[in-house]
Amino acid sequence: MISNGMEKIVNLCKVRGFINLSSEPYGGFSSCYDYGPLGVELKNNIKRAWWKEMTRHQENIVGLDAAILMSPKVWQASGHLSAGFSDELVECKKCHKRFRFNNLKPIICPDCGGELTTPKKFNLMMKTFVGPVEDKAAVTYLRAETCQGIYMNFNWVENSMRLKIPFGIAQIGKAFRNEITPKSFTYRTREFEQMEMQFFIHPDEADKWFEYWKKERMKWYLNLGIKKENLRFHEHTKKELAHYAKKGIDIEYNFPFASPTACLSGRQGRQGWQEIEGIHNRGDWDLTNHSKYSGQDLSYFDEESKDSYIPHIIETSAGADRSLLAFLVDAYSEVKGGRTETTKSTKEIEIVLKLDKKLSPIKAAVLPLVKNKEGVIKKAQEVFELLRNNFLTQYDEAGSIGRRYRRQDEIGTPYCVTIDFQTLEDNTVTVRDRDTMEQKRISIDKLENILTF
Amino acid sequence: MISNGMEKIVNLCKVRGFINLSSEPYGGFSSCYDYGPLGVELKNNIKRAWWKEMTRHQENIVGLDAAILMSPKVWQASGHLSAGFSDELVECKKCHKRFRFNNLKPIICPDCGGELTTPKKFNLMMKTFVGPVEDKAAVTYLRAETCQGIYMNFNWVENSMRLKIPFGIAQIGKAFRNEITPKSFTYRTREFEQMEMQFFIHPDEADKWFEYWKKERMKWYLNLGIKKENLRFHEHTKKELAHYAKKGIDIEYNFPFASPTACLSGRQGRQGWQEIEGIHNRGDWDLTNHSKYSGQDLSYFDEESKDSYIPHIIETSAGADRSLLAFLVDAYSEVKGGRTETTKSTKEIEIVLKLDKKLSPIKAAVLPLVKNKEGVIKKAQEVFELLRNNFLTQYDEAGSIGRRYRRQDEIGTPYCVTIDFQTLEDNTVTVRDRDTMEQKRISIDKLENILTF
Repeated sequence: MISNGMEKIVNLCKVRGFINLSSEPYGGFSSCYDYGPLGVELKNNIKRAWWKEMTRHQENIVGLDAAILMSPKVWQASGHLSAGFSDELVECKKCHKRFRFNNLKPIICPDCGGELTTPKKFNLMMKTFVGPVEDKAAVTYLRAETCQGIYMNFNWVENSMRLKIPFGIAQIGKAFRNEITPKSFTYRTREFEQMEMQFFIHPDEADKWFEYWKKERMKWYLNLGIKKENLRFHEHTKKELAHYAKKGIDIEYNFPFASPTACLSGRQGRQGWQEIEGIHNRGDWDLTNHSKYSGQDLSYFDEESKDSYIPHIIETSAGADRSLLAFLVDAYSEVKGGRTETTKSTKEIEIVLKLDKKLSPIKAAVLPLVKNKEGVIKKAQEVFELLRNNFLTQYDEAGSIGRRYRRQDEIGTPYCVTIDFQTLEDNTVTVRDRDTMEQKRISIDKLENILTF
Repeated sequence: MISNGMEKIVNLCKVRGFINLSSEPYGGFSSCYDYGPLGVELKNNIKRAWWKEMTRHQENIVGLDAAILMSPKVWQASGHLSAGFSDELVECKKCHKRFRFNNLKPIICPDCGGELTTPKKFNLMMKTFVGPVEDKAAVTYLRAETCQGIYMNFNWVENSMRLKIPFGIAQIGKAFRNEITPKSFTYRTREFEQMEMQFFIHPDEADKWFEYWKKERMKWYLNLGIKKENLRFHEHTKKELAHYAKKGIDIEYNFPFASPTACLSGRQGRQGWQEIEGIHNRGDWDLTNHSKYSGQDLSYFDEESKDSYIPHIIETSAGADRSLLAFLVDAYSEVKGGRTETTKSTKEIEIVLKLDKKLSPIKAAVLPLVKNKEGVIKKAQEVFELLRNNFLTQYDEAGSIGRRYRRQDEIGTPYCVTIDFQTLEDNTVTVRDRDTMEQKRISIDKLENILTF
């Protein structure tokens, strides 16, 4: 179920090795997607940029990598196994909101008037069995959010790293939700990757840090090149707030497909605007509940003030897949001919993926002008060896130089390095900039200074 | 169930923020472990080193990141759902080999004579339900090996990246197996991470590439500092070969815990020797089976020779958790006093984690000699800002300088940078090398040249 505006993106992802259906020879599988050679590099670059921002540029934040499988008791305490998550539910076919079957006459959606599905027993969480025997005692769940792993380790991380509040714990990892209606390519899938940071603070400082993180997170997307007009905040109304949240704000991107919740009250006019990250004030909900359910004291002792308290939490929760999709959509542009020799006359449509250099999967392409001249090929391979040692580089000698430029433009490669006959004389190459299309002659020993990311 | 030799490692991991039990406030969960702030950095450094080696240093290998959830048809074709994987099984309590209940009189293990468990219905693969209704049609499994995602995308990757055989696809990701008896800390767990590369070749070249990868993979561990005497090859006997393999060889590390299979025939004298990576010649088993089951043609067409064939596969399959454990164990060393001022007299035991610089979680520590002198603190913070921009750096002003050196030695930090009164006069700092304990005075503007990784 891909809307029209997305077709070109989905096609590019397929043809150029970014994203493919899972289990494709068997006809694909249930809204699961695989990242190909260019997709995984792009995703790794996004994850690395986030990790660097959080654990290096920001102060007092450390990393974590918790297991996907956790004690089912975690999910009892978090509220994920309570009524509402495993009841008989109906879903609105239009706005995709779910309602408990007992709570309404199953005629139309009370929110938007859409038609409802028949009632089904629905578990948001994916169940599995751990251990040799498939019985009740062995049931557990794939995590539905990565943040619970952070709460479980709050005290351990604090003590082993000798941290003082305010401090944060950052984590990147997979989570799983049994969405009834996954849709919109990789936007809403049952398996997805989160980039979450939980910031532990004194209760009095909640508003201050909420404002801080709201601004910092928006800045991150802007710094990585997403156009300002395609980003906005959406503050949660009381109705939209999650059960754990005191306050919530989404960073939304203007995608080329309609929002499934566009018809909900308070969300009018949000057609393409969809959440890519949420910033929440979770109060003391999580640590208080886990203290209660586990019988462990999860409070924090402030050595200076001799004060003991349950920290409040400001959460920044970004989708790695959703961010990637936003970066792709935002970078996608079409130019009517004229960018390269091959299309100057034909006025063919050319695709340019204007990704930030830091995110581009391939950083540079090495192109020998001709492929039948031994000297040129040898030199080109030398340059390739030089560059690939520093960053991901592609070597391409197939087809006209114009065609090769187009191939690199399509996948967002910032620099094309061409080796020609002059190179053999003066050891210079031409470097073509993806965005300005400027070509500069540069000495090979200066390449490493110019190609920086 | 941790053997004696491992106690010190497990303790260090817990106290210094490397590894912790999952869901700890609830008493832990079923052989699952979480990587803390230092653990996740160490693991990321290992994964990055592997990725760089495979997709940059080696030729013609590209990356992939396939979903954990796949079509159950994949697992039918791969043989994971056939008899033997979901039968009634007994397990030997001594050598942990499993046998089908019908195949033997349930008295003693036919291999080692050990006592057997009572028969249990056992699924190696973890089952889950995808979609709103929990019924047969919705059953699928968490992947038991990451390589199947590579086979599913073989044709797509080949075409979209215009690859020619021989080429490889590399992938890092989680896999899940319902081990009856997980054990030995993070060595045998139900959730684990693999670093796998599948190399697609012409059938005639299988032996050549098997030998190539065997050597290359051993070199990788040696280059990252594992001691030669703690590594060895173990070639699979016919009895040990997996159902898909024509030939197999393990890279084994000499761990300080006994091998569960030490009593199996052909494995005598292997007490601590355990597999950390396997190199297999899988022949055409995988692509042939998937062609047959899916009805899709998964063969490769060689444009030069006009030859069409099912490629053979040489696989290198490393455990990320197992490698990490080997790197930790190998780096762990104890010195009897004398390394720092504080222990010279007492002869206390000091721990030094002699990790390769590239793998160390923290690259440098910035230590102001005193914490009550504003000028020194200010300068130290300047140096900290300078370094943290380039790599993960810790700032520590608590306790004597000797104590702080010891803390950094314990977590494997290669360099300690100390700011003292002389710094205020001539802008130099002392840089202490973890391994040689040499201290050199260096100008601050030269720090970046010296601290390289």
